[in-house]
Amino acid sequence: MSSEMVDSGFVSSEEQIIALLGEIQDWQINHGSLLKNVKSQSEHSVYSYPVGVSVYPSPFPQSEFRRAMEIQLIYNELYTAIASNEDWLYHVTKEMVSSHPLANALWVIHRQTKAAGAAQEISAAIFRSDYMLHMSNNPSSSNDCIEPTLKQVEFNTFSCAGASHSKRVADMHRYMTRTGAYDLETATGQHNPNALSLPSNDNIDSLASFLASAHAAYGSPKNDTAKRTALLYIVQPYNFNIADERPIEYALWNRDPPVPTYRLNWGDDILQHTSLTDTQELLFHPPGLPVRDPMEISVVYMRAGYEGHEYDDIGQQARLRLEMSSAIKCPSILSHIATFKKVQQALIAPGELERFLTPEKAAVIRKTFVMQYPLDKTTEGLFARQIVHDGDCSNYILKPSLEGGGNNIYDRIPEFLESTPTAAWPSYIMMERIQPPKSRNVLMGPSGVEEGPVVSELGIYGACLWKQTNQQSEMLHNSYAGWSFKTKHAHIDEMSVVKGYGCFDTPCLQ
Amino acid sequence: MSSEMVDSGFVSSEEQIIALLGEIQDWQINHGSLLKNVKSQSEHSVYSYPVGVSVYPSPFPQSEFRRAMEIQLIYNELYTAIASNEDWLYHVTKEMVSSHPLANALWVIHRQTKAAGAAQEISAAIFRSDYMLHMSNNPSSSNDCIEPTLKQVEFNTFSCAGASHSKRVADMHRYMTRTGAYDLETATGQHNPNALSLPSNDNIDSLASFLASAHAAYGSPKNDTAKRTALLYIVQPYNFNIADERPIEYALWNRDPPVPTYRLNWGDDILQHTSLTDTQELLFHPPGLPVRDPMEISVVYMRAGYEGHEYDDIGQQARLRLEMSSAIKCPSILSHIATFKKVQQALIAPGELERFLTPEKAAVIRKTFVMQYPLDKTTEGLFARQIVHDGDCSNYILKPSLEGGGNNIYDRIPEFLESTPTAAWPSYIMMERIQPPKSRNVLMGPSGVEEGPVVSELGIYGACLWKQTNQQSEMLHNSYAGWSFKTKHAHIDEMSVVKGYGCFDTPCLQ
Repeated sequence: MSSEMVDSGFVSSEEQIIALLGEIQDWQINHGSLLKNVKSQSEHSVYSYPVGVSVYPSPFPQSEFRRAMEIQLIYNELYTAIASNEDWLYHVTKEMVSSHPLANALWVIHRQTKAAGAAQEISAAIFRSDYMLHMSNNPSSSNDCIEPTLKQVEFNTFSCAGASHSKRVADMHRYMTRTGAYDLETATGQHNPNALSLPSNDNIDSLASFLASAHAAYGSPKNDTAKRTALLYIVQPYNFNIADERPIEYALWNRDPPVPTYRLNWGDDILQHTSLTDTQELLFHPPGLPVRDPMEISVVYMRAGYEGHEYDDIGQQARLRLEMSSAIKCPSILSHIATFKKVQQALIAPGELERFLTPEKAAVIRKTFVMQYPLDKTTEGLFARQIVHDGDCSNYILKPSLEGGGNNIYDRIPEFLESTPTAAWPSYIMMERIQPPKSRNVLMGPSGVEEGPVVSELGIYGACLWKQTNQQSEMLHNSYAGWSFKTKHAHIDEMSVVKGYGCFDTPCLQ
Repeated sequence: MSSEMVDSGFVSSEEQIIALLGEIQDWQINHGSLLKNVKSQSEHSVYSYPVGVSVYPSPFPQSEFRRAMEIQLIYNELYTAIASNEDWLYHVTKEMVSSHPLANALWVIHRQTKAAGAAQEISAAIFRSDYMLHMSNNPSSSNDCIEPTLKQVEFNTFSCAGASHSKRVADMHRYMTRTGAYDLETATGQHNPNALSLPSNDNIDSLASFLASAHAAYGSPKNDTAKRTALLYIVQPYNFNIADERPIEYALWNRDPPVPTYRLNWGDDILQHTSLTDTQELLFHPPGLPVRDPMEISVVYMRAGYEGHEYDDIGQQARLRLEMSSAIKCPSILSHIATFKKVQQALIAPGELERFLTPEKAAVIRKTFVMQYPLDKTTEGLFARQIVHDGDCSNYILKPSLEGGGNNIYDRIPEFLESTPTAAWPSYIMMERIQPPKSRNVLMGPSGVEEGPVVSELGIYGACLWKQTNQQSEMLHNSYAGWSFKTKHAHIDEMSVVKGYGCFDTPCLQ
């Protein structure tokens, strides 16, 4: 066991762990903590199976957890300001347009929308800022620190997932702790597991509540033919992750008054079942409702449209229709573009944060940054190329400029770049590798159960509603909207629960 | 379509129905309306799949629904009185003792318990009375009626299942109705689907609340070594129906204050993890808790021990230990014996109901009876034998005297009896076949989806706590505790959702 490992404090015999695995599976079946086996689906039945979870909560410092929640309001302010600054956003992402079909598609759609005239001044967004704790072992690092501190892994502005799973797994760990499933002697039977330092999680309600405010902000139908407004939830077809998507829809319907919410699959379904009026209202024509009586869409909530392959002709037309409409987009296309890694890297440069924030707020945000370098011909780029040339990149990760997360290169960076044409190097960001403290846990998921050293990632949800007129941007709603906590084995690089590389977890605050 | 068929009033196109099936499956995955595929279970994962449900609610007369709820209090009174009358109970079931190992085992355990001296004056029970509507087409029937009226199918006193599934499916139909999944034009978005005549269902809370009262009635630990009391939930191992069992356990833990609840598998686990003190307290020694610090069991809630094969030596010892203890049994063994079909049939005879109830209450109960005959040599038995001899048994069902439900003979009764030794005939009851009105619905379950004429069965849960000292029996708690509603295709005889012969449903009250 590494000396830096923090113990969760839970000790169980093998017999207890096996019983506990069964308890957890049953809890997951009863509470929708599941993934759908889409291949098994028929008209009459479908299999589902538990999403990956940590058996025990993992330790996390309370001070950093609170800090992450607090600074979310500043991050929200930062990214809404970025999304309102088209020129800057184009400047930092323009190199990607020629080489990346997704970047190109989004900018093309944005320009077409702009040419048609903005039909809606209000924008909405649900963000998720992901952090790990960083413990520097390297005195030459730019981030020396003795206590582990919060460092941002990435900032997601589009289709932020995991909120519902996080809520359910938090409920599960709180339930197990309270009932003594981990340790009968310390079973509290208490209703307030905050006493046990497992924070509560209200993700589903807070996101539904936010979308309900966006719906309310739209107001009553503008078009004479529409008698009511509704929220449109854009999803990928055949999604195995419906237990993450659906709870927000259920919560919207379960509000009082309910927010009527309808799902449409990305692509042709949008073209088939929506229309734009002359005055750009987005009408929804669900099957089963007479065409003469459409609904007017107040809010378009996007959980699809983040992959390049989705932007074929049909996909582009679909996104264009949504963007051109007077519906409030959650998010609109400039917020979407702000999710690119390149934006995160651009903010590192001196003075950039201060474009959008007061110096005090900029300083708070900058503390969460680790170094990120472009691989272009700027001074920073040449510095990074020198590191690659020197051959020791063990303290770095290579990330595609385009993405929020995923498709990273963790090892053998010099070898990877050698096999990549130099012209394509600017498509990558070289990011200082965060060195998180390890703890010990048992992770259970579709691919197995394994005990060992683990590392965790904290995600903080933020929600914003803002109004933009000419050069003026006014914040209407700015809130912290929940948290996610994911844990993976320390020897695994990527963190994606649904891909099987990690587990949902709950921080045991210390 | 039969002229007697009642239409549910929901009309959907095939496209809408297919979309609806997917909506329902997703809802079920998200709300634990599932069965566990036990064979697929490993340490790290398990498959589950949706329990059978009707796509639409089925019509049911509001007056009969209310009446079934109301008379449950009288049924509770009746069956607690029966369970308190050992002599009568033995008299009506004694013929079964020699031929039925389960009946024999239960009576043997009861006698051993009695010999040791009753350690607990308080008994608890959760009952479920099952009804169908009866429409007599046969003027010679004993139950002529024009309006469909409530007739009892069976009365269950032991391990009554289905409460949790019923609650979830009721929630599902209410949700689908409210959101317009059946008919967008009439989508109400209302929070009170009672307006739509779909009754709410609080089964899980009401059963948990009842068990919590039983737990409270036990009081504080009597034994010096025990610091706390807990409820013991006895279950069958490897149960695929955990989504019906577990919610009651979760609800008990989620109460404020929580009722500590622990599961033990039927059989050896009971012998391994419990002990009886000299003063008959039942101590629970869970793995992981030091033996010096046991819990004292307040209530034993039985969801296992209803099948003959469970009473091998180990099973008998286990049940005996539970029965001999001072824990409150839910139910105790005499209540268990009262579930035998033979008891239901014996109550038909003139004067029998009046042993236990006032004439007014007896009359109310008798209205729910259809004729039942023994096949013995009593006058009623000889009458029934004559019917068999005459060869037309299409208005009758043959049911084993022992069981609450299941293993019935629906067709070719004369042929079946011919191949059965006459000495075994008294093991059967011949019951008038209830002729329920048919409606039209689409049923979806693990074996397929099918549209067609269906019939429904209403179950009403009742809960009782009573105190018996010498010949005195005092009711401490008598309540209605919820409802279940199951629907099957009209051409299927047996009604068992978990066996795939029916679906959970919600009555659309009319």
